[in-house]
Amino acid sequence: MSKTILLDNRPEGMPKTSDFKIIDEKTPEIKSGEILLKTNYISVDPYLRGRMRDVKSYIAPFELQQPIVSGIVAEVLETKNSNFDKGDFVTGNLSWKEEQVSTGEGLMKVDPKKAPLSAYLGILGMTGLTAYLGLTEIGKPKKGETLLVSGAAGAVGSVVGQIGKILGLRVVGIAGTDEKVALLKSEFGFDDAINYNTTENMVKAIAETCPNGVDVYFDNVGGDISDAVFFNINKKARLVICGAISVYNETEMPKSISVQPFLIKNSALMQGFIIFDFVDKYPDAMNQLGQWLGEGKLSYKETIVEGFEATPQAFIDLFKGKNKGKMIVKV
Amino acid sequence: MSKTILLDNRPEGMPKTSDFKIIDEKTPEIKSGEILLKTNYISVDPYLRGRMRDVKSYIAPFELQQPIVSGIVAEVLETKNSNFDKGDFVTGNLSWKEEQVSTGEGLMKVDPKKAPLSAYLGILGMTGLTAYLGLTEIGKPKKGETLLVSGAAGAVGSVVGQIGKILGLRVVGIAGTDEKVALLKSEFGFDDAINYNTTENMVKAIAETCPNGVDVYFDNVGGDISDAVFFNINKKARLVICGAISVYNETEMPKSISVQPFLIKNSALMQGFIIFDFVDKYPDAMNQLGQWLGEGKLSYKETIVEGFEATPQAFIDLFKGKNKGKMIVKV
Repeated sequence: MSKTILLDNRPEGMPKTSDFKIIDEKTPEIKSGEILLKTNYISVDPYLRGRMRDVKSYIAPFELQQPIVSGIVAEVLETKNSNFDKGDFVTGNLSWKEEQVSTGEGLMKVDPKKAPLSAYLGILGMTGLTAYLGLTEIGKPKKGETLLVSGAAGAVGSVVGQIGKILGLRVVGIAGTDEKVALLKSEFGFDDAINYNTTENMVKAIAETCPNGVDVYFDNVGGDISDAVFFNINKKARLVICGAISVYNETEMPKSISVQPFLIKNSALMQGFIIFDFVDKYPDAMNQLGQWLGEGKLSYKETIVEGFEATPQAFIDLFKGKNKGKMIVKV
Repeated sequence: MSKTILLDNRPEGMPKTSDFKIIDEKTPEIKSGEILLKTNYISVDPYLRGRMRDVKSYIAPFELQQPIVSGIVAEVLETKNSNFDKGDFVTGNLSWKEEQVSTGEGLMKVDPKKAPLSAYLGILGMTGLTAYLGLTEIGKPKKGETLLVSGAAGAVGSVVGQIGKILGLRVVGIAGTDEKVALLKSEFGFDDAINYNTTENMVKAIAETCPNGVDVYFDNVGGDISDAVFFNINKKARLVICGAISVYNETEMPKSISVQPFLIKNSALMQGFIIFDFVDKYPDAMNQLGQWLGEGKLSYKETIVEGFEATPQAFIDLFKGKNKGKMIVKV
């Protein structure tokens, strides 16, 4: 018997643990071409909130009474597939199950000697790719420019800031606690950081920490924080719209300032993306990230929660800002 | 003596004729290298509203008690500059004066035999360039896609739609009267058009007129109309932000829906521009527009107001939707 986490209700506003259901299931026998996987690490990510809504999006919504799917690292327990050996570790989009059967399609083998297994869900996985490709492909950062990052202490934000520093930019972060602000400067090398929870006038705070204006804004949060950024963007600014965590749980259509006049006035570009847009650039990006990591130029934080059944709560805690860096469940 | 129109007050909200002052001035004698110009046509444009505010923008604000400057076609009355002959016609950014002295710098000679003089303020001037370069450089339209244009019966919008048709797109326009809607279809070849003043549910109306979704949105208006568009954009949509006439006269910071989630969900791009961004592309664009005009593929409308002193009212009437096509004052 192994446990599975299903979506029991579509959340209204902030998700609750009662929106999920944990059941015991017998894992089926593997057939020819299949492998049996035991889950080691589960990635919980803000974008999963979108899939819990029953609306058309870039990716189909989760179905009720079906398992949630996210990035997972797992070990091969049994194999009837010649591409995989017992004891291999793999990563890919898998179900929130303690054990599961897979054909191996879409899975990538990972090497626990090169990096800790959890890193393949973070800096060497979707997180790192999202940070690197969003920043370089849309943000097109140039040495000497100013990069502002919201959700800067989060998994993606902290990597974006460090890449900005490697590329020679002034990097300023926005985060929600003094502890995170300190971490951005001490651990991740940000030039400056703003605590939006204790800052009265965000427009002024951004102006002060970005005295030459904002050339690239890497946005993980949306909402009021992003509204304040528009008053500080430079001519030909690039706004990389990666996430909007501040509005994912809103039940009414959120309102913001009208951004169009700011875009016109500054000939600025604003572009949303999902990482799958850049799938042809994954190999080069992985190489670059692996190289920087090996050279000690990238550091990363993980918030590791223990226990399979803690996965729903870990997901909910993302929206409460309880993580520093990548939020991961260790099964 | 000749008349000059000065900015007397910075308008609050909708401009009033009392924000302008008309004075009589003696035109100075021309010196060596100068020419004396007599104004024939004055272009009034929504973007001038921005220059009447005392805020930092891509172009300096107009100064109080100084003449307004806009696109003008004028005739050379006297010359002490060997580049210009008496009787030449020129166009460029000039002051709202019946007569003025210029060094000729930044002026371009125009040929009244090739096109009516007023066309050099419209289809063969900034209007045509804005439509062509905004659409092609940012919108990157592809044959078979759907192009939606707001302010479609305006000077820029009506040209954008026609270029869309030349390039093989389905073209839908949004305008504010039934007469304009009819004009878009009969005169400018739009496939369909929506009257936003008589439409209750714009989201639905756009969905119905753009059954394959919106690939390119050329936005001249901003505000509520543009908010409705976001619900109908396709994956990888391009939103060309040319103008936001609906909010130019707002005295409070206007609110809109949060666009970030729509941009993420669709990997969509939104970019503001001013025509000066593409200055290196003017010659090619002029050639293309001239060719299409010569081939009878582009038609244009002008709303011509008579009399120099009517210029402020003509400008104000832009915000009341009183023009069809390019609004021009004939002096």
